[in-house]
Amino acid sequence: MKVFRDTKKQHQWSLKEHSKGLKPGLVPTMGFLHKGHLRLIQNAKEYSDRVVVSIFVNPTQFSGGEDYNKYPRDEERDLELLEEEGVDAVFIPEPLEMYPEGYETYVVVEELSKKYCGRSRPTHFRGVTTVVLKLFNIIQPDVAIFGEKDYQQLIIIKRMTKDLNLPITIISSPIVREEDGVAMSSRNKYLNPEERKKATVLYESMKEAQRLVANGITDVDALKKEMIKIIEKKEHLRIEYIEFVEPETLKRVKKVGASNRILMAVHIGRTRLIDNMKIKGQAE
Amino acid sequence: MKVFRDTKKQHQWSLKEHSKGLKPGLVPTMGFLHKGHLRLIQNAKEYSDRVVVSIFVNPTQFSGGEDYNKYPRDEERDLELLEEEGVDAVFIPEPLEMYPEGYETYVVVEELSKKYCGRSRPTHFRGVTTVVLKLFNIIQPDVAIFGEKDYQQLIIIKRMTKDLNLPITIISSPIVREEDGVAMSSRNKYLNPEERKKATVLYESMKEAQRLVANGITDVDALKKEMIKIIEKKEHLRIEYIEFVEPETLKRVKKVGASNRILMAVHIGRTRLIDNMKIKGQAE
Repeated sequence: MKVFRDTKKQHQWSLKEHSKGLKPGLVPTMGFLHKGHLRLIQNAKEYSDRVVVSIFVNPTQFSGGEDYNKYPRDEERDLELLEEEGVDAVFIPEPLEMYPEGYETYVVVEELSKKYCGRSRPTHFRGVTTVVLKLFNIIQPDVAIFGEKDYQQLIIIKRMTKDLNLPITIISSPIVREEDGVAMSSRNKYLNPEERKKATVLYESMKEAQRLVANGITDVDALKKEMIKIIEKKEHLRIEYIEFVEPETLKRVKKVGASNRILMAVHIGRTRLIDNMKIKGQAE
Repeated sequence: MKVFRDTKKQHQWSLKEHSKGLKPGLVPTMGFLHKGHLRLIQNAKEYSDRVVVSIFVNPTQFSGGEDYNKYPRDEERDLELLEEEGVDAVFIPEPLEMYPEGYETYVVVEELSKKYCGRSRPTHFRGVTTVVLKLFNIIQPDVAIFGEKDYQQLIIIKRMTKDLNLPITIISSPIVREEDGVAMSSRNKYLNPEERKKATVLYESMKEAQRLVANGITDVDALKKEMIKIIEKKEHLRIEYIEFVEPETLKRVKKVGASNRILMAVHIGRTRLIDNMKIKGQAE
């Protein structure tokens, strides 16, 4: 397994693989890998000939008050895991390699980036699209794999890829959950044992909405009310948003139709968790 | 000479040339070609194996009150000229091909885009960088040629290319001038004969500044004052800006040093003209 910290060397490696007729697939991560990431890597293997994983805690997607400095990191363990998974190359740049002095170029997917998570994190998606475009240009993948866990991010990346005519196929990979339903996330590490127990409410409330929809309740306000009831049974939780949306445009719906999605963000103590779930309307 | 109106077909052609080991060079234009463009094409031939010229009057770099609709167009003549020049491919997309419904992704080089021309045209450079990045992704050139006539644009494109890790070499090509010194520009067509005569003041005033610098005057305020005198001898002219800047960062200087550049924009009647000139300070 090759480990590159230098953008030029990573780029050269990718060109060489291309020249052999091999298609690289990219799995962009912020490291501190869990089973969700490993699922993305397995997906990448299906769709490409060479798997490149990037590990980069990207400063431009965190704002001042956020957790950039305390974001969990464990490079040694990550590299062991990636070696075991049979990854071909790992790209681990330093922040100054990615954003040298004088850096000032940003990519914005304007409307999609303002909604939902974008309301509380106004520069977050700008940072994500910018770093992903940079990774695309350095690594030149034919396919890139993104998890459905960050569903709004996935849709924004798809939109950017289409809008900018990037010759890259974006593959999405389903959420991997713990046994109790909590979506795997590096940020789960922030939760103390008591908070960790409460974290199941995101999954539970969405499952309840799914059940109600299956029983014919399609009014979004009524569904939200039931979800909020479940969440508010636990103390010290703050709902940031619960939205029922169209799966590709992320437009809000008032009545649950075919293949809509619930998106939600909840704060547990000082930790912000997001989750989402496909919900089948009666049209299906 | 191939003519492509479809992004996918242009992209396929470029991939095919790449697969033969040939390097495409791109000359992006808005059409209505003049000798300045032909110079760019000759430059492209030096640096690449295949020359692609794009012709696209890009709506996103014009704002509401500007000349998008009346911008001069003459596709038939352009294609004849390009055929004569021995260009390999011409890419002429329709606006809806480049910006389909739901389009919302933009690239911004933040600080450089706010200065000088960016003050009177706040979304102009955002439109330029966005369309250039799209053209780069569609055409996949190894080199791209930009004229020094749009000097701020050239520096912004260089910055974007570096910041986004694009594997493309940006080549700049000197201004081509009419016999009386007026920089060639498709917008010169807007000038009536009287205005066209006055248009020489941009060149004349910069030449005078150059002469004064050669005689040891390096104070920028003093130089500007002399330039303004020359321009104000003619009626109905409005100076938008005259700036003396560092050539790569476009930072203003107070004293003319090595390889500084004069940038200027002047309105003649309803037409806005820009020009620039390298000016050698005493350090050289």
